[in-house]
Amino acid sequence: MKSPDFCWYTDTCITQTISEHASRDSCWIIVHGKVYDVTEFLDEHPGGSKIILKYAGNDATEAYEPIHPPNAIIDNLSSEKHLGDVDPSTVTKVVKVTSEAEKKRQALIAKRPPLDEILNLHDFENKAIAKVILPDTAWAYYSSASDDEITIRENRAAYQRVWFRPRILRDVTVVDWSTTILGQKSSLPVYISATALGKLGHPDGELNLTRAAGKHGVIQMVPTLASCSFDEILDAAQPDQPLFLQLYVNRDRSITKRYVQHAEARGVKGLFITVDAPQLGRREKDMRMKFVGDDAGAKVQENMSGVRKDEGVARAISSFIDPSLSWKDIPWFRGITKMPIILKGVSTPEDAILALEAGVQGIVLSNHGGRQLDTSRSGLENLIEIAAALKTRGPWPNPNFSVFVDGGVRRASDVLKALALGASAVGIGRGFLYAFCSYGEAGVEKAFKILGEEFEMNLRLLGARNLNELVPEMVDASALQAHVSTPKDNLFDSTYQPLRLAEIKAAKL
Amino acid sequence: MKSPDFCWYTDTCITQTISEHASRDSCWIIVHGKVYDVTEFLDEHPGGSKIILKYAGNDATEAYEPIHPPNAIIDNLSSEKHLGDVDPSTVTKVVKVTSEAEKKRQALIAKRPPLDEILNLHDFENKAIAKVILPDTAWAYYSSASDDEITIRENRAAYQRVWFRPRILRDVTVVDWSTTILGQKSSLPVYISATALGKLGHPDGELNLTRAAGKHGVIQMVPTLASCSFDEILDAAQPDQPLFLQLYVNRDRSITKRYVQHAEARGVKGLFITVDAPQLGRREKDMRMKFVGDDAGAKVQENMSGVRKDEGVARAISSFIDPSLSWKDIPWFRGITKMPIILKGVSTPEDAILALEAGVQGIVLSNHGGRQLDTSRSGLENLIEIAAALKTRGPWPNPNFSVFVDGGVRRASDVLKALALGASAVGIGRGFLYAFCSYGEAGVEKAFKILGEEFEMNLRLLGARNLNELVPEMVDASALQAHVSTPKDNLFDSTYQPLRLAEIKAAKL
Amino acid sequence: MKSPDFCWYTDTCITQTISEHASRDSCWIIVHGKVYDVTEFLDEHPGGSKIILKYAGNDATEAYEPIHPPNAIIDNLSSEKHLGDVDPSTVTKVVKVTSEAEKKRQALIAKRPPLDEILNLHDFENKAIAKVILPDTAWAYYSSASDDEITIRENRAAYQRVWFRPRILRDVTVVDWSTTILGQKSSLPVYISATALGKLGHPDGELNLTRAAGKHGVIQMVPTLASCSFDEILDAAQPDQPLFLQLYVNRDRSITKRYVQHAEARGVKGLFITVDAPQLGRREKDMRMKFVGDDAGAKVQENMSGVRKDEGVARAISSFIDPSLSWKDIPWFRGITKMPIILKGVSTPEDAILALEAGVQGIVLSNHGGRQLDTSRSGLENLIEIAAALKTRGPWPNPNFSVFVDGGVRRASDVLKALALGASAVGIGRGFLYAFCSYGEAGVEKAFKILGEEFEMNLRLLGARNLNELVPEMVDASALQAHVSTPKDNLFDSTYQPLRLAEIKAAKL
Amino acid sequence: MKSPDFCWYTDTCITQTISEHASRDSCWIIVHGKVYDVTEFLDEHPGGSKIILKYAGNDATEAYEPIHPPNAIIDNLSSEKHLGDVDPSTVTKVVKVTSEAEKKRQALIAKRPPLDEILNLHDFENKAIAKVILPDTAWAYYSSASDDEITIRENRAAYQRVWFRPRILRDVTVVDWSTTILGQKSSLPVYISATALGKLGHPDGELNLTRAAGKHGVIQMVPTLASCSFDEILDAAQPDQPLFLQLYVNRDRSITKRYVQHAEARGVKGLFITVDAPQLGRREKDMRMKFVGDDAGAKVQENMSGVRKDEGVARAISSFIDPSLSWKDIPWFRGITKMPIILKGVSTPEDAILALEAGVQGIVLSNHGGRQLDTSRSGLENLIEIAAALKTRGPWPNPNFSVFVDGGVRRASDVLKALALGASAVGIGRGFLYAFCSYGEAGVEKAFKILGEEFEMNLRLLGARNLNELVPEMVDASALQAHVSTPKDNLFDSTYQPLRLAEIKAAKL
Repeated sequence: MKSPDFCWYTDTCITQTISEHASRDSCWIIVHGKVYDVTEFLDEHPGGSKIILKYAGNDATEAYEPIHPPNAIIDNLSSEKHLGDVDPSTVTKVVKVTSEAEKKRQALIAKRPPLDEILNLHDFENKAIAKVILPDTAWAYYSSASDDEITIRENRAAYQRVWFRPRILRDVTVVDWSTTILGQKSSLPVYISATALGKLGHPDGELNLTRAAGKHGVIQMVPTLASCSFDEILDAAQPDQPLFLQLYVNRDRSITKRYVQHAEARGVKGLFITVDAPQLGRREKDMRMKFVGDDAGAKVQENMSGVRKDEGVARAISSFIDPSLSWKDIPWFRGITKMPIILKGVSTPEDAILALEAGVQGIVLSNHGGRQLDTSRSGLENLIEIAAALKTRGPWPNPNFSVFVDGGVRRASDVLKALALGASAVGIGRGFLYAFCSYGEAGVEKAFKILGEEFEMNLRLLGARNLNELVPEMVDASALQAHVSTPKDNLFDSTYQPLRLAEIKAAKL
Repeated sequence: MKSPDFCWYTDTCITQTISEHASRDSCWIIVHGKVYDVTEFLDEHPGGSKIILKYAGNDATEAYEPIHPPNAIIDNLSSEKHLGDVDPSTVTKVVKVTSEAEKKRQALIAKRPPLDEILNLHDFENKAIAKVILPDTAWAYYSSASDDEITIRENRAAYQRVWFRPRILRDVTVVDWSTTILGQKSSLPVYISATALGKLGHPDGELNLTRAAGKHGVIQMVPTLASCSFDEILDAAQPDQPLFLQLYVNRDRSITKRYVQHAEARGVKGLFITVDAPQLGRREKDMRMKFVGDDAGAKVQENMSGVRKDEGVARAISSFIDPSLSWKDIPWFRGITKMPIILKGVSTPEDAILALEAGVQGIVLSNHGGRQLDTSRSGLENLIEIAAALKTRGPWPNPNFSVFVDGGVRRASDVLKALALGASAVGIGRGFLYAFCSYGEAGVEKAFKILGEEFEMNLRLLGARNLNELVPEMVDASALQAHVSTPKDNLFDSTYQPLRLAEIKAAKL
Repeated sequence: MKSPDFCWYTDTCITQTISEHASRDSCWIIVHGKVYDVTEFLDEHPGGSKIILKYAGNDATEAYEPIHPPNAIIDNLSSEKHLGDVDPSTVTKVVKVTSEAEKKRQALIAKRPPLDEILNLHDFENKAIAKVILPDTAWAYYSSASDDEITIRENRAAYQRVWFRPRILRDVTVVDWSTTILGQKSSLPVYISATALGKLGHPDGELNLTRAAGKHGVIQMVPTLASCSFDEILDAAQPDQPLFLQLYVNRDRSITKRYVQHAEARGVKGLFITVDAPQLGRREKDMRMKFVGDDAGAKVQENMSGVRKDEGVARAISSFIDPSLSWKDIPWFRGITKMPIILKGVSTPEDAILALEAGVQGIVLSNHGGRQLDTSRSGLENLIEIAAALKTRGPWPNPNFSVFVDGGVRRASDVLKALALGASAVGIGRGFLYAFCSYGEAGVEKAFKILGEEFEMNLRLLGARNLNELVPEMVDASALQAHVSTPKDNLFDSTYQPLRLAEIKAAKL
Repeated sequence: MKSPDFCWYTDTCITQTISEHASRDSCWIIVHGKVYDVTEFLDEHPGGSKIILKYAGNDATEAYEPIHPPNAIIDNLSSEKHLGDVDPSTVTKVVKVTSEAEKKRQALIAKRPPLDEILNLHDFENKAIAKVILPDTAWAYYSSASDDEITIRENRAAYQRVWFRPRILRDVTVVDWSTTILGQKSSLPVYISATALGKLGHPDGELNLTRAAGKHGVIQMVPTLASCSFDEILDAAQPDQPLFLQLYVNRDRSITKRYVQHAEARGVKGLFITVDAPQLGRREKDMRMKFVGDDAGAKVQENMSGVRKDEGVARAISSFIDPSLSWKDIPWFRGITKMPIILKGVSTPEDAILALEAGVQGIVLSNHGGRQLDTSRSGLENLIEIAAALKTRGPWPNPNFSVFVDGGVRRASDVLKALALGASAVGIGRGFLYAFCSYGEAGVEKAFKILGEEFEMNLRLLGARNLNELVPEMVDASALQAHVSTPKDNLFDSTYQPLRLAEIKAAKL
């Protein structure tokens, strides 16, 4: 049990005995040393009541932790059900039996290729590594995107519609790809973008990122829906290690206020408010996950009872997000923090201009990794229109208004394309996520190293000695807006039956 | 036997005994309690004479019903062969033996995934559900389209060439996707478009749609070629449930007049005259269906005798349609009904303007689900040109001239794209058809529910609180008219043999 | 033995005994009742000497006929080796043993689907019919095209980049797709384009076309390289059946003159001079054919000796074609015939204008079925530019200057697209070729019937009652010139080895 | 052992005994008759220490030669470790055992198709020939390109986006495709571009090219990183056979100066300075090669120790290349040689103009065969922009400023497209490389012959009698810059898992 962390949603603490509350009639459980009365919640639990009853009157932390964000139980349970602290040593541990599938998975983990064989960020993610190593639920949750998953693939494809126009015969003996992001030094023109529920994929969750980032001078954006608590993550950071905070705005603004101010007090350097998720998207891969046993990790994916049966984990963990968030709220944010405020999830020049006028310090051109509105365009494509609009309102690039891009980045060359088109820096989420799922902290360090080598080579080959020498003329983005092909519609293709020709009946051809 | 329904083609009723007319020399059959002398028709029957002779002197209703439109026998038989009513209790029932294939099909039906696992409209249609559950004839008839089936696939692909430009930071706590269609309230900006021969796929045929639509405030367009009679459908509707009527215009206009006026009398709220089918298309999947036994459902697909041998079921059931229908007929329609008149099957701005000038109340941009003229463009693409043309002739959108789109719609996001480009509402045919084929009325309700959830999410993510806030700026349709790729030419690809390289003869590579 | 036909290359006739000339030292053979001394030709024979020696001192007609154009032996042998006529009854017949492969082929032919199952022109050509029925050599020769076979596929793809804009509500009760071509009545806006060596695929060769065309009012273009002699074909025609002549111009113009004037004398109605084949293309499928036995049909494909070893049958049969043919020769043609002269194989507006100025009666926009210069554009695409150029020089369409298109046509809808863009008529070669290979004359008739049905339906659905009502506005050809995708480069793709990701060594995934 | 060659990097020669230096503590080896102390180099060797120790105190030439460029050992070893000459007859030979894999490979080589079956340049390269014949290391090194290998495939695809506009009716009896390149006669408008390490694929390495080129009047560009030494290559050339030199500029300019002046002295006719490789690209196929035994050829691919473990052979052999090379160095080159100077690797009009202004004699539009900066555009595409820019600065084509193109060329038709667009000549690298790997010198001769036949045919079919008659109007390059499709992203596609539909659990479909 860790030292008491700050919880951004509550700070009440009570102690009480619980062993007699172990039935459907009265069901208490312990999570992280606190006791909750979940009797009335049993039928509402997205993962079903059975998995809770298994831990009734007992400590459920081990099962709870990897698949719930820290605030899940507190947000879903009215405060009078929060019964207070308990001494965990007084409760019986539930014996966890390792399943055959889990044993097989562990055997595969042991056979992972050595890190030396990882040559690029794709390697971490590939079906032969992450897909077999990760529990099915983690793979489904991480890899899924919304609807037909057009946008997640378009995000990648967009980068490959931008072509280089490299310059020659410049002395590129020394090349430098370090930069500053919102005034913070960064060894890469890349930050670690927020991804949720890191413990689904690795026991140390987001801490892998924090530790590697600290060693290598990279900035991590801490997610609201991290598996690790905010303070755990901050505690794992180096002194003076810059961190950003990704924020889902709570329906209860007082919770949000406390959370933001706590983050600022702990030294967070930028506040990225997610504005493209008034409701979390329908992600069918995640929803399609079937009941695969009595294991909590799987159970949460099981079809829910009643009307919520097909909503998946994403919806279940996000009910606190406020769909009423609007431009009117921006001044309030300016009032509660001095951190730079960045709006994450901007797609149009209209909104980019509104953001500039609202006095925030920047925007992220993002479609949430393809997980929200499907057939949204890529951030890279939107950058073209948005750069054109911002140029009419001041200097470009604007030192006081950063424009970040995320989604689909796998190579340093992708980053250089976005920078050449005017982006301030680029966010990478899944790339680092899969790196730590497969190899922990060392995987993240390897990812940084790969990117560094790619930046060095590509800058030399482009004829740019540093990021200031990257200019729009170094890329040909003329095909970017052409949408010359849409990613395959796999569902439709699976339903369509191709025409066939007349045949000779008995002929074996 | 139901209470006497209105038949739009005849109202003569006679009673007579029939048991002695059970041979090729004199062959009478009973259909829906009426007796017909089909002796001379035996050799003309598209399904062959054998299947009729099986029911000679007997009640053929059960075999007749699923695969014939209500008026088929009457239209194909001169009126002097219509011998009148009979008391069905006096005739021997033919014992129907369940075939092995049918038993297998029933077993598969029993194993359908529970409705909870259906996540989208594709799921209903997919090869793993509808294709195995439906009789081969039904699958062939429903899924087929004309020639190379380019247009049916382009219909779908067109939607995925339109990309979203979502807006942020609008208070989307409450979103509303209800609308009115031709003055009728609709819970969805979607109506159920007409599809023929519903009993091929489900014993209750079109009634599944009527009942589900009544419960959920959705408007059904009743097809002329329904398996259920018009009155059966109307009887299944709720009081005040709005319905539209799809009309194939009969060569005999008096029949059409009676049909339309009867529909208006029964409260139908809109008349959709099909104008893209002076002749029904050649649909090779349907034509390719082989003789598969003595079952009527299959038999109708068998190659016909003489010159009609390769025409398929579509041609056989549609000979009454009048190819002479022209703009000159529109005033006549205006004279026989006060219902709004909509021309279904418009493709060009030229014809849209003619329709406006002809004083009708709207048009449907449709290519008949890809079942008529192949390599026609999609309705969605045509909407761009047509909207531009209509803008030059009055307000846009025009409250007195509705522009509907159908074809290829599978997602609420598709609907929103069409609406953003100016469509009044969108028709979905196959989506609901496959829903009831696989799951009956409950399937249709599930389809409504899926669409509702998609509308809610997508409107929020687009930043539109209701359909009025959907504006053209929310989509990027620049790739729509580019036809960046044509659906695969499966027939040509099947004939083309790719080039090969030189090879080492004996090498196993 | 047929009555003495006119041979366009020679008319010498001598009789002589031959049985003693049956060795490599002195080798005489009989072909079509004439004796040739081929002793010195043995080593030059594209099919090798062995196959000739098999027939030394004997009648080689049966082996010779299916795979050689009528003039092959005469052109390749200097005239002093033409020894004269013989009485074939005096020579021993070589017993032909049917090979296992041939027996298998005959069995497959017997199992062909009945013609009723043929629904479209693709069906004739498909791998499940023509490919298994045809001898390998025939399939290789007919189906092959030049280099990477990009153009042959582009020819087809081009049609599917043109989309229809159908008109509605026109009285289409009566539709008429007959036309006149160079002043000759034609029941279809289609003529049978010339294809060589028809006996490779069917014993009656080109006569299948002639007979079917005569019955159905379709015009056949007689090929110079027919397997049947010119007179055989003319003899098979109806009185007054219009025919055109395709001409490869001989290096010896006196031969050409006699041939053309004989054709005119026999009533041929148009002279199509091939201008895109100063040398026949390298067709690798044809060249790739391996030695597959001692059969003449296969033998001719065997690698040739010496420098000509890899040239294939096409080159071997075409050495008489004159590469010096130029615009200067056109007046000469005008001087030797009154037939309309059409230049077959025009690709550019520059040459179309030159043709108009040269006073010929028309051009065929053709790339020789993709068999000559690969990555040439399709005739359909070239029609756009050429129509624009011709409009600047007179009326369009020009009644005195016909513009035909061929290549890639499989559907009546293809034809209608070309006509809407201004073509006078469309040539179909392979479509009819495969029809007779698979089903003889009845196959060709079926092909006419399929086209007729498609014309009827498509004209109705387009809203055009006859060909004059086809206007450019009925098609959207905006994607035609975009070359949005090139047919697959199968050779390059076969050499390129896709990148792979890191893998878990022992994992069975 | 050959007669003493000129080595461009050193000319020191010393004799000394070595047999006692055969351990890790003191390790000497002989290479090409010279002794080196590699004791301190053991741990730095890219191929690991084990392979060196096998030859400790002995002659390592046989293992060294095929996989190292001549200067590798000298450049990587400081000069005090170069101990001088030795008499090789005094040292024990290491017995080389033929592995099973090698035996299998030799068996496959014996079964190669005869050269007659090679119809095009693809045939040499294909998976069924070169891939099975070549050692895995050679295939990996030759076939690899950088990052996602987009550019290597785009190089090929670009040619197929250019379409021909052939002219007709020109007298093409005589066609001539010879030309002059930098003032030197060439039988083809093609030169042999430099590729490294020819002995990896064939024991005679680059000499195959030299000999075939000499016989057929083709110009070879000698690579700096040849497996054969410069003098060996020059010695294999005919008297007066023109050769060009490809130059990687050494960090030590005195070495470069000697090398260039030696080349000029030996009669080299042009100096191609590589300007697109300040650092050699990361080529993952090459890097992915696994340790496959103790064989030197494989060993060099093994992951290296320490930080250099994943750099691959390309980086290891190229550390001498000077990344500081810049425009400032051009005058220096002009001062050391009178040979024409060509900059190889230009991609932009900006740099083309700078080259013109710098007074060099030409440029090669090249992306290094896709092996350097991935997603660079093809040379062919860049030619369009560059031609437009150069036209503003003088005559075009400019007789004093040659513009070459390389990359992706497989057909004479490709060459003709580049020439029509203004290129002076075209370089082919891999095409000839694979030709000699598979068939030695005869393969290269066959490649020349194939190209010659293709040139003859294509010029005739284009209507161009010689290269001067090739004009821009003969091609339609409008799709070239459209980038209508990007080559497949195989890595991303391998990680992306397509969506699936709901399924019937137990159904076998």
